[in-house]
Amino acid sequence: MDNTSLPTQPYKGARDFYPEDMRIRNYIFLKWKEVCKRFGYEEYDGPFIEPFEIYAAKSGEELVNEQIYSFIDRGDRKVAIRPEMTPTIARMVSQRYSELNYPIRWFSIPNLWRYEKPQKGRLREHFQLNVDIFGIDGVEADIEIIQIIVNLLKEFGADKNMFEIRMGNRILLEDVLKDANIPSSKFKDIMKAIDKLKKISVDDFKYILKEKADLKPKEIDSILSFLQSSNEYILKMKEKSPGAEEILKTMKLLRLSGIESYVKYDPSVVRGLDYYTGNVFELFDLSPNNSRAMAGGGRYNNLVEGFIGKRISGVGFGMGDVTFRNFLENWHLLPQIPQTTEFLITVWPKEDGTKSDKYFNASLETADILRKKGRNVILWLDANTKIEKQLKFADKKNIPYAVIIGDDEINNKKITLKDMKEMKQKNLSISEFINII
Amino acid sequence: MDNTSLPTQPYKGARDFYPEDMRIRNYIFLKWKEVCKRFGYEEYDGPFIEPFEIYAAKSGEELVNEQIYSFIDRGDRKVAIRPEMTPTIARMVSQRYSELNYPIRWFSIPNLWRYEKPQKGRLREHFQLNVDIFGIDGVEADIEIIQIIVNLLKEFGADKNMFEIRMGNRILLEDVLKDANIPSSKFKDIMKAIDKLKKISVDDFKYILKEKADLKPKEIDSILSFLQSSNEYILKMKEKSPGAEEILKTMKLLRLSGIESYVKYDPSVVRGLDYYTGNVFELFDLSPNNSRAMAGGGRYNNLVEGFIGKRISGVGFGMGDVTFRNFLENWHLLPQIPQTTEFLITVWPKEDGTKSDKYFNASLETADILRKKGRNVILWLDANTKIEKQLKFADKKNIPYAVIIGDDEINNKKITLKDMKEMKQKNLSISEFINII
Repeated sequence: MDNTSLPTQPYKGARDFYPEDMRIRNYIFLKWKEVCKRFGYEEYDGPFIEPFEIYAAKSGEELVNEQIYSFIDRGDRKVAIRPEMTPTIARMVSQRYSELNYPIRWFSIPNLWRYEKPQKGRLREHFQLNVDIFGIDGVEADIEIIQIIVNLLKEFGADKNMFEIRMGNRILLEDVLKDANIPSSKFKDIMKAIDKLKKISVDDFKYILKEKADLKPKEIDSILSFLQSSNEYILKMKEKSPGAEEILKTMKLLRLSGIESYVKYDPSVVRGLDYYTGNVFELFDLSPNNSRAMAGGGRYNNLVEGFIGKRISGVGFGMGDVTFRNFLENWHLLPQIPQTTEFLITVWPKEDGTKSDKYFNASLETADILRKKGRNVILWLDANTKIEKQLKFADKKNIPYAVIIGDDEINNKKITLKDMKEMKQKNLSISEFINII
Repeated sequence: MDNTSLPTQPYKGARDFYPEDMRIRNYIFLKWKEVCKRFGYEEYDGPFIEPFEIYAAKSGEELVNEQIYSFIDRGDRKVAIRPEMTPTIARMVSQRYSELNYPIRWFSIPNLWRYEKPQKGRLREHFQLNVDIFGIDGVEADIEIIQIIVNLLKEFGADKNMFEIRMGNRILLEDVLKDANIPSSKFKDIMKAIDKLKKISVDDFKYILKEKADLKPKEIDSILSFLQSSNEYILKMKEKSPGAEEILKTMKLLRLSGIESYVKYDPSVVRGLDYYTGNVFELFDLSPNNSRAMAGGGRYNNLVEGFIGKRISGVGFGMGDVTFRNFLENWHLLPQIPQTTEFLITVWPKEDGTKSDKYFNASLETADILRKKGRNVILWLDANTKIEKQLKFADKKNIPYAVIIGDDEINNKKITLKDMKEMKQKNLSISEFINII
């Protein structure tokens, strides 16, 4: 192999996190975790590789056939790199079904992979905050999940002009389809088409329903008129569909919780995954720069059933870090996040090239003292660098203070503390130094 | 597919982190990060999937041929799930070679995968703290890296009876082999055999050297006598080998840094990876229960060269979370880490089955107030659960306080605060409540 033939770029659609990006990632994740804990959610994680079957069952055709990273391992097992987290949490809940205390409130921030054409807001990998509650049948759980989304955004300083949650209901949609005498075998294809509606024209949408789902013009019209229906229509459907009743109850509880202004009923929200069974919702950035859904979720009552034959109702959502960071940047909600090193301890260069270690020792000792006090310190490691060059390094790295220890300082048992921003310096004894920091 | 056929266990050799394990993982990672920052290291991360080639060049045969998880993606690229982090950091440094400020101090805690037989202390996946410094040629960098390892262990309360760092040197070993007239084409196989010596008998070791490396008995004897040599031998080799000189200089600086008692010269430490070029070291648990190396690292001066043809010297180490947790548990250094929810806000059950929401509202309001103060709160979501059952949940989850709001409390604008450990309760106004928490 040629000596210099190795690729320096990351794999297509994946990100390198250099320290300045890592700080932003950590800033976002820390706030996400704080909000989840505030609602009593506990962090969990599962493996990056999962048995392929757990997706094949319920995640939906597009994801499983076109997007999943799967391969056969050296032991001849078909495995997948996790494309979403919900099957993992369903597996884990199933595994400890009878030991766990219900309701279960869990969150995680897994790194997920899907094979797709990288584009703005969508890469092949992303981190996704997943928040789920298991064991509550009532819409109170849906409300709590929506409340968490609202609080997550407010935590970063977002207000109601910036985002909106749009909510639909799978039961209502199915009842409308049944009402139009559309056979249930066509529901999956119809939902898939509706989920794509944001990205395609109405004509393309009609074409798909006609060609893929083999629907008659009248059936297509009834779907279109439902998708354009307003809140009044839900009231009309109240007696006919438990889905309508569910939405009305959800709306009422949203008002009680004081978050109704963040949520809007939208019959076209259905979600792309197969396993949802009730309310479904998506979070949108209200800026035209960012039209993609930032988060999505809903109720899924039958996911654990596939593992152990028992029914536990779940509600949850996922929110990706790529669109979320776009959102924060777009609305100028991302602060400068400084690096954390506070001191550069310089090492006085040996002018005569002798083997004396006294300068290095004095600096090493000072670094040790500071570190024992829990302070973040870089010790200059090369014994023959000019002080100016060392200070330039501190300046470039935005390290606020430099410490200089030359002959004068060693003889007087002092240090010189240099404020890199103010460009002022003070001569201090070690104990004075420790007292002021 | 059968309804209940899905596997509930994680993929072989991989772990599910239920909340109690996740808390331990977070506890360990947080301390790791604090120590790294104390030495001025900045966190970074790279993608979970990397181009296969970056391992093929330098990671060593066993890893690449037998252990790596690799596959062809849908775009016909050969990719690998990262089995180690050093090639990623070398790739990232190469990518921004001319923009970065040297020396570079970076750390990361990637999840890494190797296909192997799962056993104690070794799984197919683990998290590994990686700490690396680039751009310092002198052993001062080696010392800083060793100092970080020592501080990492001390941070958890470990002392010098519990662990030991053993250090060898690749240059010295190669010079010894050259001195015995062994051709350099055999060095790789010899190093591989030496790296295995901990796990095999001396007879097996001799057999491997004879059969695999085709060595004569005299050559084998000279290797064995080197492996049994003590510190005096290094002094003898001082003039002959720059490796011996490097070790002596390292030993001297270890003394200056006050950490010499944690480090021992051990000629049998060579490390399994191909890319090391100087000092190499391994961290051992001194308990007989845990004989595996807990961390390993060394100097690698040519890794960036394969990407961009430039030489930047690096020193670093990796420390896995599986053996590290074993170490902490073995020496009883792992504290109880409580869950973080502080309050369960109960909801008074509706005795008459009416639609009144007053109890739920009152509890929801209280939960909101606490959360706005940054406190971690679970609100009971089911409106018809007996208070006893709700309290039992708080008890099982180790939530320290429960709040009860029934008719009396609502009428008097008060709440009842129940200390779940002391089993005492107090009647408080909301403002009194906020003042005492």
